[in-house]
Amino acid sequence: MKVAIMGFGVVGGGVGELLISNAENIAKKAGEKIEVKYILDLRDFPDSPYKCFTKNFEDILNDPEVEAVVEAMGGTVPAYDFTKRLLLAGKHVVSSNKELVAKHGTELLKIAKEKNINYLFEASVGGGIPIIRPLISSLTGNDISGIIGILNGTTNYILTQMIKNGKSFDEALSEAQEKGYAEKDPTADVEGIDTCRKIAILASLAHGKYVDSMNIPTEGITNITTNDAKYAQAMGYSVKLVGICETAEDGVYARVCPAFINLECPLASISDVFNGVLVQSDALGDVMFYGRGAGKLPTASAMVSDLVDVAKHINTNIRILWNESEDGYLKDSGEQKFSYYLRLSGTPDGISGKIKTIDGLSDEFAIIVDPVTEIELDEMLKSEPFAGHTVLGKLRVI
Amino acid sequence: MKVAIMGFGVVGGGVGELLISNAENIAKKAGEKIEVKYILDLRDFPDSPYKCFTKNFEDILNDPEVEAVVEAMGGTVPAYDFTKRLLLAGKHVVSSNKELVAKHGTELLKIAKEKNINYLFEASVGGGIPIIRPLISSLTGNDISGIIGILNGTTNYILTQMIKNGKSFDEALSEAQEKGYAEKDPTADVEGIDTCRKIAILASLAHGKYVDSMNIPTEGITNITTNDAKYAQAMGYSVKLVGICETAEDGVYARVCPAFINLECPLASISDVFNGVLVQSDALGDVMFYGRGAGKLPTASAMVSDLVDVAKHINTNIRILWNESEDGYLKDSGEQKFSYYLRLSGTPDGISGKIKTIDGLSDEFAIIVDPVTEIELDEMLKSEPFAGHTVLGKLRVI
Repeated sequence: MKVAIMGFGVVGGGVGELLISNAENIAKKAGEKIEVKYILDLRDFPDSPYKCFTKNFEDILNDPEVEAVVEAMGGTVPAYDFTKRLLLAGKHVVSSNKELVAKHGTELLKIAKEKNINYLFEASVGGGIPIIRPLISSLTGNDISGIIGILNGTTNYILTQMIKNGKSFDEALSEAQEKGYAEKDPTADVEGIDTCRKIAILASLAHGKYVDSMNIPTEGITNITTNDAKYAQAMGYSVKLVGICETAEDGVYARVCPAFINLECPLASISDVFNGVLVQSDALGDVMFYGRGAGKLPTASAMVSDLVDVAKHINTNIRILWNESEDGYLKDSGEQKFSYYLRLSGTPDGISGKIKTIDGLSDEFAIIVDPVTEIELDEMLKSEPFAGHTVLGKLRVI
Repeated sequence: MKVAIMGFGVVGGGVGELLISNAENIAKKAGEKIEVKYILDLRDFPDSPYKCFTKNFEDILNDPEVEAVVEAMGGTVPAYDFTKRLLLAGKHVVSSNKELVAKHGTELLKIAKEKNINYLFEASVGGGIPIIRPLISSLTGNDISGIIGILNGTTNYILTQMIKNGKSFDEALSEAQEKGYAEKDPTADVEGIDTCRKIAILASLAHGKYVDSMNIPTEGITNITTNDAKYAQAMGYSVKLVGICETAEDGVYARVCPAFINLECPLASISDVFNGVLVQSDALGDVMFYGRGAGKLPTASAMVSDLVDVAKHINTNIRILWNESEDGYLKDSGEQKFSYYLRLSGTPDGISGKIKTIDGLSDEFAIIVDPVTEIELDEMLKSEPFAGHTVLGKLRVI
């Protein structure tokens, strides 16, 4: 099978590397050799073992020998236009581009189905962790009731440093940037945008109906303080940035937020740059997938697996699909009840419940309150015995 | 698609239940309705919603309408004969029968390939946890270097009770039997036989060459004492019964044994009846799959997923296959180096290294020794400074 790679950065380069280093093994599994015929990139790579670079997309589009294309460009321009034209021309596309999948997946999957080819994107969520394929092929006997994912390695690294080593957010972020775990502009990571795109993809797959990431309430980790981290540890929780999807009647709830995770939950022990996805379903109970959510070779590994799947399904559309969803399918997640961790000013006199004070943190305390909606929580905080206290920290408890 | 269920016990009954309760969802994913035409069982089930029971295997074998059969009989007689005849007749078979797969998988997979149909057995390892499909379809870009699995819920429950609640092996076993987690005759579980069959299946799939479970050195958990559990906790380890497969040059090492697992390893936190499989590979690093490894609906859920896969591949053999292996492919695992936990009589005077003594456990101590082969360990224990000490406990450290 002859393929092209679009975008020869970290991930695309990793795909090129694996296709050489694991060639024999890959050919055995695919049933044929996978050969790179073109690499599209505007840069030059004189030292690459590959000599098939082009700067012209039309070379790939118009070559009938190219059956599948690896899209590792990122962003939506020109990736959206290129992907659409390739699919319309009957070429399979495998992608690591969560932004594109989250935004235009519905249309691209529809074209792939109509053309009886495949648009696969295992690498777009959880890097190399197999999660998309299990969701659509292994959990098919189940009604999925919920998905909770730690989907961003950068923020998980920062939060782990804050909890385990008492670092401040800024210290931990600088360290993550030094180690190459965080980008110079960390906005998409620390504000939860990356997590949001990924949970939108998983939510869309879980029930076969599109959930638009733009409509998912999203909160990042920039407001978390070292004091919150101290209370978490003292109270038996970890703090994680999670993407949540919960099945509701005629729809789903979805949300991205930092949350207190009970140490009994397998997600709590996922540290540093690792990712984990917990899938809850009726028959199966909890299933968790764990591994490296980012990085060159893990992500490339997922894309190569998709290429192998294409080779095995060259004339068949694998049933990965979601349809447009009706209005109101994504429910107002303000209706959803959560237990909350609250860090409040003053002393806990006259307040009963799961309260914690910490030596050295004077004139403040923390409490875990029973599940309430957002509106109920706001009402509660305005009433006695909470009315006189300032909210210093507030996180959902999962 | 019309199917038959052979064996209507816990698992077969669960498949029947899911095919009714999740019918709509399953039909959507399979692309067609899945209808049970026969149920083979020697018992009567007058209260079942199904009215299609038969005691005659030939009814299923000779009905051209039956395209796929669920084998949930267990054991090899008559399951082997039935499965073989069904496959030769061109009917797909999905199975939860680890004994049969571990023993006769090579032949049955070969027939399925020749007939261009499928023999699938996701439920045979890890119950409902998707592990076989990810191994063969998601990790295809990787060279798998090792697999470590907690594959038996019964023994994991017993060990968890011993470590966390200080129970003795006998107490924990009785409790497991009361709760229905252990059978009246727990031999296959506590002696590691069940784990051995499962790691043999995973090892065979990892490199596409058969590993015979009968040749895998297998040690159960009956020799583990509460004292070993105390040292584990004091030294920062958990104790788990693991199946291990490690890639070697021109072959694999495989072994089943109880082991000290460092608490930093994600396998250490897998408690009670849960299972977990850690797959190590070059590109991807560690990936872990976690969930309920047994039970009616989890196992049934995996079988239904296999049925859906059959419906999607009715005229295609999914490339799940292993071949016969050459002599010597399974290496002598005595050559493999492990770090060991040793519990020794006497006092640790004159011995240096990672030593632990526990108040109340007088005249004994524990030590973790650096990686050695079995022969090297035996030599070491016969030499100074160990020669005068009796070995009270000995476990590999993973």
